[in-house]
Amino acid sequence: MKLHGYFRSSASWRLRIAFALKGVKIDEQEFYPLRDGAQRAPDFLKINPQGLVPAIETDDGHALTQSLAIIEWLEETRPEPAFLPKDPIDRAKVRAMAMVVACEIHPVQNLKVLNAVKALGHSDDEATAWARHVNFEGLEAFEALLQNTKGPFCFGDAPGLADICLIPQLGNARRFGADLSGFKRILEVDAACKAIPAFANAVPDKQPDAV
Amino acid sequence: MKLHGYFRSSASWRLRIAFALKGVKIDEQEFYPLRDGAQRAPDFLKINPQGLVPAIETDDGHALTQSLAIIEWLEETRPEPAFLPKDPIDRAKVRAMAMVVACEIHPVQNLKVLNAVKALGHSDDEATAWARHVNFEGLEAFEALLQNTKGPFCFGDAPGLADICLIPQLGNARRFGADLSGFKRILEVDAACKAIPAFANAVPDKQPDAV
Repeated sequence: MKLHGYFRSSASWRLRIAFALKGVKIDEQEFYPLRDGAQRAPDFLKINPQGLVPAIETDDGHALTQSLAIIEWLEETRPEPAFLPKDPIDRAKVRAMAMVVACEIHPVQNLKVLNAVKALGHSDDEATAWARHVNFEGLEAFEALLQNTKGPFCFGDAPGLADICLIPQLGNARRFGADLSGFKRILEVDAACKAIPAFANAVPDKQPDAV
Repeated sequence: MKLHGYFRSSASWRLRIAFALKGVKIDEQEFYPLRDGAQRAPDFLKINPQGLVPAIETDDGHALTQSLAIIEWLEETRPEPAFLPKDPIDRAKVRAMAMVVACEIHPVQNLKVLNAVKALGHSDDEATAWARHVNFEGLEAFEALLQNTKGPFCFGDAPGLADICLIPQLGNARRFGADLSGFKRILEVDAACKAIPAFANAVPDKQPDAV
């Protein structure tokens, strides 16, 4: 199993958590410093024509892309420990939380979008303010969803798909200076996840390519 | 089954297609003119604290949000006709295509983001150029993924999750003036879907709230 990723990419971070929780060893990693455009190198475009990390190469030679698609594949092929509850309605609620991060927050504050904001003539500070607002507003919605579930994790007493998406996003939110102090349930989830090695070892600073 | 949506919302459009393909009748609809901020009305925030359409209220009173989470729920509770292939690797590939739309293209060109671009002092034309570029670049990546699959649909000879996401995005892409003429496989998929009533009847112009 080979992971193509980057220490600071929060979608790569999701995969580091997910593989560790499932106990699936990543045998090899390749790192793509995004600011240098390494993810657009011809060899990597053969693996992911989108030129985005993360991607996975499986032991039997399949290239998989899009972190949530990879995590669903992991869940289907290695059911334990489960990332989704059993009841279909509960599964939809957990997936919806994951997608608040993956379809609402993350895409609008990544490096590509911030570069697009700057290309319109705005400063680094304005791009950071954009990212901070996107994170704050999105996490405010996430916190509202968490009012309907029990803790200490996003959905009950074990981590799952929603936690796997939330924790890396909190890393971004803090990097951009979003004030998370009012998000009590989110902070409860954050504390519960920090105590689990699969989460603790996945943080950017602990990766081999961290600078 | 009640759909909270809007004729022009491409995520609502996905649900219109998905429910029709599964043969699940939507008994009631409520419409939220997004430019007027109707989706932020207090009554709707009880259903979706994010203030986003679409949302579904099920017959037994559950409120579900996030179109892809709703479609996965539909797939789990009404397996036929299948939106995903059986093989886990194939499923990951179809989900990845859907997520290129749902996690890469759609979030960066929706009304909220275009309003944020305008709030930075840019014109309608500049916001449209932003949306056109996001659609073109994202669909270029989608077209590259389609080189690895057989037609006439995104994955073989029946429509599925990837088609359900692609077709509404093409509606947006055309509205913003993206040039799709070079995307041969995408146009093949588009033609194949147009011939199916579930797709043909889901287009914005045919909805009761179309203006």
